[in-house]
Amino acid sequence: MRIEIICTGDEVLTGKIINTNFSYMAQKLEDFGLSVSWGTIVGDDREELLAAFRLSGERADAVIVNGGLGPTIDDLSQEIAALAAGVQLVLNEDWLQRMEDFFRRRNRVMSANNRKQAMLPTTAEILDNPIGTACGFAMDIGRARFFFTPGVPRELFRMLEEQIIPRLLARGGTPGVIHLKRFHSYGLGESHVDQLLSGVEELVPGGSIKLGFRTHYPQIETKLTIRGIDQDDIARKLAPVEAEVRKRLGNFILGEDEQKLEGVVLDALAARSGSLAVVETFTGGQIAARIAHLPGAEKVFRRGLVARDPAEIANALGLDGGLISGELSRVDFGGSIHLAIAAPDGVESRRSRIYGGRDWVRLGAVELGLDCLRRYLQGLPVTERTDFERV
Amino acid sequence: MRIEIICTGDEVLTGKIINTNFSYMAQKLEDFGLSVSWGTIVGDDREELLAAFRLSGERADAVIVNGGLGPTIDDLSQEIAALAAGVQLVLNEDWLQRMEDFFRRRNRVMSANNRKQAMLPTTAEILDNPIGTACGFAMDIGRARFFFTPGVPRELFRMLEEQIIPRLLARGGTPGVIHLKRFHSYGLGESHVDQLLSGVEELVPGGSIKLGFRTHYPQIETKLTIRGIDQDDIARKLAPVEAEVRKRLGNFILGEDEQKLEGVVLDALAARSGSLAVVETFTGGQIAARIAHLPGAEKVFRRGLVARDPAEIANALGLDGGLISGELSRVDFGGSIHLAIAAPDGVESRRSRIYGGRDWVRLGAVELGLDCLRRYLQGLPVTERTDFERV
Repeated sequence: MRIEIICTGDEVLTGKIINTNFSYMAQKLEDFGLSVSWGTIVGDDREELLAAFRLSGERADAVIVNGGLGPTIDDLSQEIAALAAGVQLVLNEDWLQRMEDFFRRRNRVMSANNRKQAMLPTTAEILDNPIGTACGFAMDIGRARFFFTPGVPRELFRMLEEQIIPRLLARGGTPGVIHLKRFHSYGLGESHVDQLLSGVEELVPGGSIKLGFRTHYPQIETKLTIRGIDQDDIARKLAPVEAEVRKRLGNFILGEDEQKLEGVVLDALAARSGSLAVVETFTGGQIAARIAHLPGAEKVFRRGLVARDPAEIANALGLDGGLISGELSRVDFGGSIHLAIAAPDGVESRRSRIYGGRDWVRLGAVELGLDCLRRYLQGLPVTERTDFERV
Repeated sequence: MRIEIICTGDEVLTGKIINTNFSYMAQKLEDFGLSVSWGTIVGDDREELLAAFRLSGERADAVIVNGGLGPTIDDLSQEIAALAAGVQLVLNEDWLQRMEDFFRRRNRVMSANNRKQAMLPTTAEILDNPIGTACGFAMDIGRARFFFTPGVPRELFRMLEEQIIPRLLARGGTPGVIHLKRFHSYGLGESHVDQLLSGVEELVPGGSIKLGFRTHYPQIETKLTIRGIDQDDIARKLAPVEAEVRKRLGNFILGEDEQKLEGVVLDALAARSGSLAVVETFTGGQIAARIAHLPGAEKVFRRGLVARDPAEIANALGLDGGLISGELSRVDFGGSIHLAIAAPDGVESRRSRIYGGRDWVRLGAVELGLDCLRRYLQGLPVTERTDFERV
């Protein structure tokens, strides 16, 4: 099945907003084993939109159009969809009623131009949008099934998952269900993770498990997409592979699925009724800024201290200024990072030289600091070498 | 002149990387009065690339292609460009020499597959890339002039500014020079700024000044694009308009051009040999994290303190715990923000209720804190109401 995406709107075409909706959609489809073949970006312009709809309608089996469903005059998707398919626009009484209810529940008055959002091509099938006034819809243009979606990210995301992906999977004849399993790691480069996991897909014969990666430095996300007949089949296929991934990536796995490093650290501290204080110099408060605001941190995060001058830190902590100054005065040079974890049962410390420019090193230092804390709390070695360090 | 952009590469098409190159290019072109009519995203696939080059070659006057100039087998731009134009690929000895020099200067050995990067269509005009091995080039395909650029952002940015925009301006017959003047503000919504600046373009007759905005909450960037015969002409046209913008946006302007809020605050403190200490609770260290790491902050930023528990703050500051607790215990509810600036000559304070969800309120609180500090240091009122607050 050939899938195309058309992103519409002057704000996207002029680069005023970065097109994160496109990458979100492409990634989400990929998670369900569906791949995008072509992307098009056009502005709020009748001729360009018509040309884009016609071209994709000739080439593709399915087309997702994003944006242009709003109430203002530059929102043209319904009008051009009707034109491209050679059908009329009619007022959809059901959607009008939905919108009126939507505004009533919020004690707001619906303005006259919202009525435009209920004007749909006669052949349109409604795609529900439970959290907004833009009406999603599906219809045929040329030889393709088109899915029209709102530009507001959270409305798009929900419609894509709940309405569009099930329809695409049904059209593509994909049997059963698909599951996405994710592992987050810090300290290994993408090619290293790839090499460590070589062959894990083959643990389950038949190609029903696909391995993929997404890098957002300094973390790498390892993704397993599993196809199965039902959830039991998925669980049976996934079990040996996820066990193998955990074994091979080992201590470098900082979390799975929705977990985040700072959340893992916070939970580990909360579980032992622990508390945390952070002292930062080179990282300038960025470790505290990752963790102190989290829900639940009020019970755990005791105090953060940030200072650039080693004497200031020594003074605040009541330490010997000369000693600490000698150590810390070198941290700003050559990407050398010093970190220490002091706990009731002792002190762990680590010195590390991270590759990259100053901002890159700082990014790495924040992650290294949080990850060493995670390792410490999980009883793992804090000094295991990462791929981002010089020897 | 009709301009199109084609972004190539599986990583972009699958959404693995967010397509920031597209928005960068579109914005940069807009800054020079050039607008993009159509964007295409295709993967590393011979058929799709050929179709994309042919379609754009029929529709556009100029096409910028991004990506696919690397040394690996999935880098196909030169090959498909030659195919689309019906010409051969030949080894460009000059570029081969450039690459060999490039590696020699870095004491690295050029690998055999880099040679592929010097294979160019016979009709290609080289676009210099002084900071990489990917050779940019321009050539005709269909009725359009194509500009092939590297996917590495910093190489693309430089080639776009130094090589491509001058050629596009020459082709478009745009006379003289173009200048971009930017103002950064905090506290006014985009439609409010738009309304306040209504008519400023007309201060210079002849349409040679264009007004635009870019919102990255909580800041708004106001952009003036000025066309002129030469720099003197630009300066003469800009003077009355920039004076008017400064007058109308007034205290809300936090910086111009390359200035950033945290840099303005730091510079204002440095100029008076001042120092800064920051105490944060709801913002969890995010104010310190914006400023403490900046070059020059080591002379100014004295200490940051982060705590979630009001008693902890009272304790650290040697204040009356009961008093501060009564005030601070309410900050987490209803988006209510309390901030105070204590200086040798007195104390200023502000209470504010910011619209939005918890994370949005925190983003606003960080900005409000820094901007009040900027206002204080510049002798402006810190309590002026913003558009983002409830009354």
